[in-house]
Amino acid sequence: MALTVVGSIAFDAVRTPLGARERMLGGSAVHFALAASFFTEVRVVGPVGDDFGEKELAVLRRRGVDGEDIEHVAGGETFFWRGHYDEDLNTAHTEETRLNVFADFEPKLSTESREADHLFLANIQPDLQRRVREQCPNVRFAAMDSMNLWIDIARDSLLATVASVDAVLLNDAELRMLTGEPNTLRAAQEVLAMGPRVVVAKQGGYGAAMFTRDGFFALPAYPLERVVDPTGAGDSFAGGFMGVLAAHPDAQADPELLRSAMAYGTALASFNVEDFGTERVAALSGEEIAARVAELEALTRFSAPAGLTMR
Amino acid sequence: MALTVVGSIAFDAVRTPLGARERMLGGSAVHFALAASFFTEVRVVGPVGDDFGEKELAVLRRRGVDGEDIEHVAGGETFFWRGHYDEDLNTAHTEETRLNVFADFEPKLSTESREADHLFLANIQPDLQRRVREQCPNVRFAAMDSMNLWIDIARDSLLATVASVDAVLLNDAELRMLTGEPNTLRAAQEVLAMGPRVVVAKQGGYGAAMFTRDGFFALPAYPLERVVDPTGAGDSFAGGFMGVLAAHPDAQADPELLRSAMAYGTALASFNVEDFGTERVAALSGEEIAARVAELEALTRFSAPAGLTMR
Repeated sequence: MALTVVGSIAFDAVRTPLGARERMLGGSAVHFALAASFFTEVRVVGPVGDDFGEKELAVLRRRGVDGEDIEHVAGGETFFWRGHYDEDLNTAHTEETRLNVFADFEPKLSTESREADHLFLANIQPDLQRRVREQCPNVRFAAMDSMNLWIDIARDSLLATVASVDAVLLNDAELRMLTGEPNTLRAAQEVLAMGPRVVVAKQGGYGAAMFTRDGFFALPAYPLERVVDPTGAGDSFAGGFMGVLAAHPDAQADPELLRSAMAYGTALASFNVEDFGTERVAALSGEEIAARVAELEALTRFSAPAGLTMR
Repeated sequence: MALTVVGSIAFDAVRTPLGARERMLGGSAVHFALAASFFTEVRVVGPVGDDFGEKELAVLRRRGVDGEDIEHVAGGETFFWRGHYDEDLNTAHTEETRLNVFADFEPKLSTESREADHLFLANIQPDLQRRVREQCPNVRFAAMDSMNLWIDIARDSLLATVASVDAVLLNDAELRMLTGEPNTLRAAQEVLAMGPRVVVAKQGGYGAAMFTRDGFFALPAYPLERVVDPTGAGDSFAGGFMGVLAAHPDAQADPELLRSAMAYGTALASFNVEDFGTERVAALSGEEIAARVAELEALTRFSAPAGLTMR
């Protein structure tokens, strides 16, 4: 029941209406791995530079994340992203992206990482995602994320990657952009027709919707009074989602388990945004997660009133 | 168990990506009344001109809506709105608004309308809303809608109206605009502090969230492949919501009933957008509504997986 993730390992500089950090641990693989670590054994694949040290590794290690496949590029610098959010916290404004060691990254998975039951291809160049996918032919369930940049400049490659996975997790705007279909339900159906059997449309502060060949499920976001920093929320969502699936490898992602996975993803995303970068999720307990999922269940349950006769 | 609504009765000209209508029955009170008519006796208060005839009245009458308080202004023309929607169906672009008979409207409620248990103040000038509210001192539950225009040009009057009702139903952007609070949860809490005990944030294609003093509830929108015309969706939502409350006057809007009301509002809004104007809701059956609410229940239910141990 292991889960391998390939994606960015980064330092982020971020400014939001509630504060700023000049340099903090980030990256899609890091956010994903910390979130998933509550449910299963997680292995991270990705490159770092000389500036990535013991302190950063310790954050992953404390959560039991396996960093054996984190590749140290001597003389290199770690991927760096600088951005800000205005009052609309659903939109990240990128100010600077330095690929650094990511520019020449060629993923090399150890036997252990290749043999994980579950695989997540976080948002990196789709050729790279596919090369990882090909190294893991026996994976039971593979999922991917992506972004508008790749839809723009590497669409064909991205479509090939989509066809190679079981689940696609995208922001709903990206889903519409990928398919050119303004209706989210029809956009999801187009992606399902490409091969995957699960499509998740992440909707920022509105929650997330899941589309499968025979069903639909949606959950609102957990309501928060203070959203400190949305960076990594989508990756934490994906980590919770995939972590729950990987913890039940024999359930073959049945509909009930997929719904639970959506709920844990929603919970992890909500914790993620409560503080900067990885700060909240890295310090989280399993009890807090379980309590929030139970709350989400209570906050969304209803039943038709007895004795309502319609006219 | 009657429900009075005051609001616009209109002719609309609308263009959407899926078609157009040059002149169709519309208006907030009309959409509201048709939706609510499935649950309770509804009375409509509002002015019309000479161009509003038997054909339009018949649409209301067929659903059992009481039109005794529809005021015919001799020599006048009915309120007219022209607008369009682009691919983002959440945003209406107004091209023309002719107030016509609405410019000098002074609501006069009959004894029957004043004595309804439930009252809905649809989106009209907030002074008018308050004058209606004052004519119904014994109402058990009063709710209101509004719009960005009144927040802009009649804010103080609008705040006084807010303080006079039990529930406020607004688009979430309007809720944030009214309070100047970018966080929807905090915006809702500010409105609750003004007097109402229920705040509903309508979120277009994302669904709706409800805030009360001791709780939160949210529902996604019913997923639709084809959204033909969103005009009136918010009013149909409000009609379903208030109709369910009015059908249970002794329940005093308890938390469970409010959740059901959200579900019926969501169902009615989803039917509304399936065709132009009132066309779908006017032809709807109670069975279709019940089936869609049951579907919504099934589409949002989940439970935490048994035996999930966290690490």
